[in-house]
Amino acid sequence: MKKVLFATTALIATASVAAADVRISGYGRFGLDYNDANDSNVNGISKTTITSRLRLQFDMSAESDSGVGFDARFRIQAESRDNVVGAVRQANGARFGVTYEGFRLNVGNIIGAVENTPGTYLETRTAGTGIDGAGFVSHVGNVSNEYFNWDAYSSGGGGVNGVEALYSAGGFTGHISYSKRNNSTVNPGVGNGSPNAAARAAIMLAYNFGDFNVAGSYQDSDNMWEKKYILTGSYDGGNWGVRLAYADNEGIGKVGLYGNYDIGAASNILVWVTNEDAVSAADVANGRGDNRDAIAGSNQGEGTSYGIHYSYDLGGGASFETGYRRASNDNDTFQAGVYFSF
Amino acid sequence: MKKVLFATTALIATASVAAADVRISGYGRFGLDYNDANDSNVNGISKTTITSRLRLQFDMSAESDSGVGFDARFRIQAESRDNVVGAVRQANGARFGVTYEGFRLNVGNIIGAVENTPGTYLETRTAGTGIDGAGFVSHVGNVSNEYFNWDAYSSGGGGVNGVEALYSAGGFTGHISYSKRNNSTVNPGVGNGSPNAAARAAIMLAYNFGDFNVAGSYQDSDNMWEKKYILTGSYDGGNWGVRLAYADNEGIGKVGLYGNYDIGAASNILVWVTNEDAVSAADVANGRGDNRDAIAGSNQGEGTSYGIHYSYDLGGGASFETGYRRASNDNDTFQAGVYFSF
Amino acid sequence: MKKVLFATTALIATASVAAADVRISGYGRFGLDYNDANDSNVNGISKTTITSRLRLQFDMSAESDSGVGFDARFRIQAESRDNVVGAVRQANGARFGVTYEGFRLNVGNIIGAVENTPGTYLETRTAGTGIDGAGFVSHVGNVSNEYFNWDAYSSGGGGVNGVEALYSAGGFTGHISYSKRNNSTVNPGVGNGSPNAAARAAIMLAYNFGDFNVAGSYQDSDNMWEKKYILTGSYDGGNWGVRLAYADNEGIGKVGLYGNYDIGAASNILVWVTNEDAVSAADVANGRGDNRDAIAGSNQGEGTSYGIHYSYDLGGGASFETGYRRASNDNDTFQAGVYFSF
Repeated sequence: MKKVLFATTALIATASVAAADVRISGYGRFGLDYNDANDSNVNGISKTTITSRLRLQFDMSAESDSGVGFDARFRIQAESRDNVVGAVRQANGARFGVTYEGFRLNVGNIIGAVENTPGTYLETRTAGTGIDGAGFVSHVGNVSNEYFNWDAYSSGGGGVNGVEALYSAGGFTGHISYSKRNNSTVNPGVGNGSPNAAARAAIMLAYNFGDFNVAGSYQDSDNMWEKKYILTGSYDGGNWGVRLAYADNEGIGKVGLYGNYDIGAASNILVWVTNEDAVSAADVANGRGDNRDAIAGSNQGEGTSYGIHYSYDLGGGASFETGYRRASNDNDTFQAGVYFSF
Repeated sequence: MKKVLFATTALIATASVAAADVRISGYGRFGLDYNDANDSNVNGISKTTITSRLRLQFDMSAESDSGVGFDARFRIQAESRDNVVGAVRQANGARFGVTYEGFRLNVGNIIGAVENTPGTYLETRTAGTGIDGAGFVSHVGNVSNEYFNWDAYSSGGGGVNGVEALYSAGGFTGHISYSKRNNSTVNPGVGNGSPNAAARAAIMLAYNFGDFNVAGSYQDSDNMWEKKYILTGSYDGGNWGVRLAYADNEGIGKVGLYGNYDIGAASNILVWVTNEDAVSAADVANGRGDNRDAIAGSNQGEGTSYGIHYSYDLGGGASFETGYRRASNDNDTFQAGVYFSF
Repeated sequence: MKKVLFATTALIATASVAAADVRISGYGRFGLDYNDANDSNVNGISKTTITSRLRLQFDMSAESDSGVGFDARFRIQAESRDNVVGAVRQANGARFGVTYEGFRLNVGNIIGAVENTPGTYLETRTAGTGIDGAGFVSHVGNVSNEYFNWDAYSSGGGGVNGVEALYSAGGFTGHISYSKRNNSTVNPGVGNGSPNAAARAAIMLAYNFGDFNVAGSYQDSDNMWEKKYILTGSYDGGNWGVRLAYADNEGIGKVGLYGNYDIGAASNILVWVTNEDAVSAADVANGRGDNRDAIAGSNQGEGTSYGIHYSYDLGGGASFETGYRRASNDNDTFQAGVYFSF
């Protein structure tokens, strides 16, 4: 058995200008998930199960003589949730990029402008509550039974096969993205992920000035209920931070307030609360999921959700992570485990 | 094309205490398999086919400041048996571990306490006879038509998603493991590998004193025919070794005797014989496989099986491996090929 | 994130004689594909789509004390064509090799003697026209609706699980290959890629004398329409080259003429034209695809096909590639994109 990877900074520094290389990185996280929506006698799943993910990421790059960079990425990951080992453990769809100074063009399994909005995910290693994100109820773009209905990098699937451009200069970042699915109603055998021909276009703008960050994004879509805009603002006070986010998800507003605080040298505690509007009667009549009748175990739900997360840095890239959250449909989850990156 | 791996010992030695890294290792083995249970005109498979496996293993690790280690492993492998290339060539389920001094806790795709019993597999590179193990008839836990009915690391699938603890100190090793499947009779769509809700718990104890090794293990299970215990003892005489193993597989006893001898500097020859009890009439009435009527090509069979294996070390991590075995149902296999590790 | 790969030549030079190692290499290519056979309103696919591939290749090797080499290879790749992300992104079937001086024996996912014939693929990075090969209409072995009906290395699937031997000495290369499928008419559940039991045997001979190269190959097969021979000859004039190829594909002759020319230090332009015979009336009566009625979007077609390809070297392993081709069935494709290797 041979050791492939070791301390890296020096190696990157000495790489020649026109070098082509592969980098391997990733993380492992594993722990226990208590979810009161599970019951061995009802849905066959124990209330407490193992939740885990091992991710291995390959980043390839090359740089032309004129300083234009080319890169590509894919991942392989193995997961377990609800005591079921994920069936897909092959590489995801690839993302390809061209970079020049502050500009980046990506094609394939794109990031997505809405997904990339600063201030939407939690300031935790899992970007959500607990050890696997606990359904990311804390995200203001997730409402009703329409979770993650925007273009985003897919870690296990093929992705949306789109195109996007990003530009950064000083404290400014701009991002536009576009994807177009094949028309599988004309040719049912050919599609990528969606039953209908649909295009999504999105834009995101973010600005950092000192300790303040503001960001806004908008997605237009041919699919129902996918038009949305998101606004966020955050303040970084050094050993504490506070953040506010709001989204209008084609008529369903959701607002979130988030705060985190360092305790000593190694600990951080984070709390959050969100409030989601009801689905309008017109939308319900038009077939939209009615989240006034909360379904246990689902993520949907009008009203208030909240959570708390605690992290302890173990050193060497490892940390202990634990979190509890209550969704507005009264679904409780509590998770604790270990996260390490490499 | 770039070279990733080279001599390793030095690199491991210089790795800092709290480093996180990825190691890549694996092996290739390929050769010819003669199996008299195959026949082009009967089952469509030639008697002699290519048998092969290429395994690539990724081991990730990190170490906290306090010396607690975290690690994870998965594999990708491509196989061919009976002239059929294996359809699954994605990563297997991940195993995650926490280590501290002689203690290890694993979750996910666990090793399994019974699987880890010293003195159960052959002292060959393939752990069985020939170049692909030839069905592992030599293992005393494999009886009737119940082969590998214990928790074990799965190289191609998701594994049992269990939990286990191991402790080693001096010549002693202790190992307990536990896995619990989802109740797929309650929720048919959700399960992991087994049609019924079932838990397996196992324990293994091993002790080495000088040239002698003894080990014992026991598995309790909610599934039929899976309760078993195994006892083994071996003596290492330097350039020769002898080993005895016995298992009670929920009423079917199987005993094995194994001996190997070094010939010169590079060769080793190994011989083995096992004897398996008949299935009791009560068990047959209760639906257990009746191995008194041996089926050609299957592994099952009351009575005596035996085999011989020869290995020649070619240097540089490569060796020539060949072996013949006759199962108690008169199934003959003869294999020869090359095995190299990296 | 750590850097795995860096400048390689030195490392290979210093590898010890009996070292075992893993090498990682590959390429990314992505661009736009205009194909007039697509139409959103007819087959659901836009005329212009993203075409892409990210390939990661693992090459393992070991060398015995006596200088015999052992190696193995597999790949993982993610592709997109016609706006569909490829569903198979796991490792392909493995190829295993034994080498000694100018001799090589391979088993598994073999190269194939016909596939390995010099002078059959275009002198471009994609071995065809444009950024993804555009169907490889330029290959004289591809006729009627029988494309790639010879043993060849499979990058995404299991391959033919065959055996082959290659020998090189001076300017001479000889190559024989053989594969045998299981008889899936006897045992429908067991096969590898083909509905009938079929064996393919092939031979290839090539010779280089100075700036001239000649090669010939022949495949015999149990499958219909797979018997073929190919003859090629080429001249390398330094900054220009010309090549002629002819194949008899079980009665369908196809001839190709190819020329390429360097423009300045970084550019190359390549043009090609092929002419394919009609399917004979006897063969049509016997069920062979009748390519006189060209089907838009298919590759088949009696008559003349032609193409032009332009490449510009960007340095650092990256290049810009673009190409247009018209198949004999009047199908036009035009592609442009970027290709980089690592």
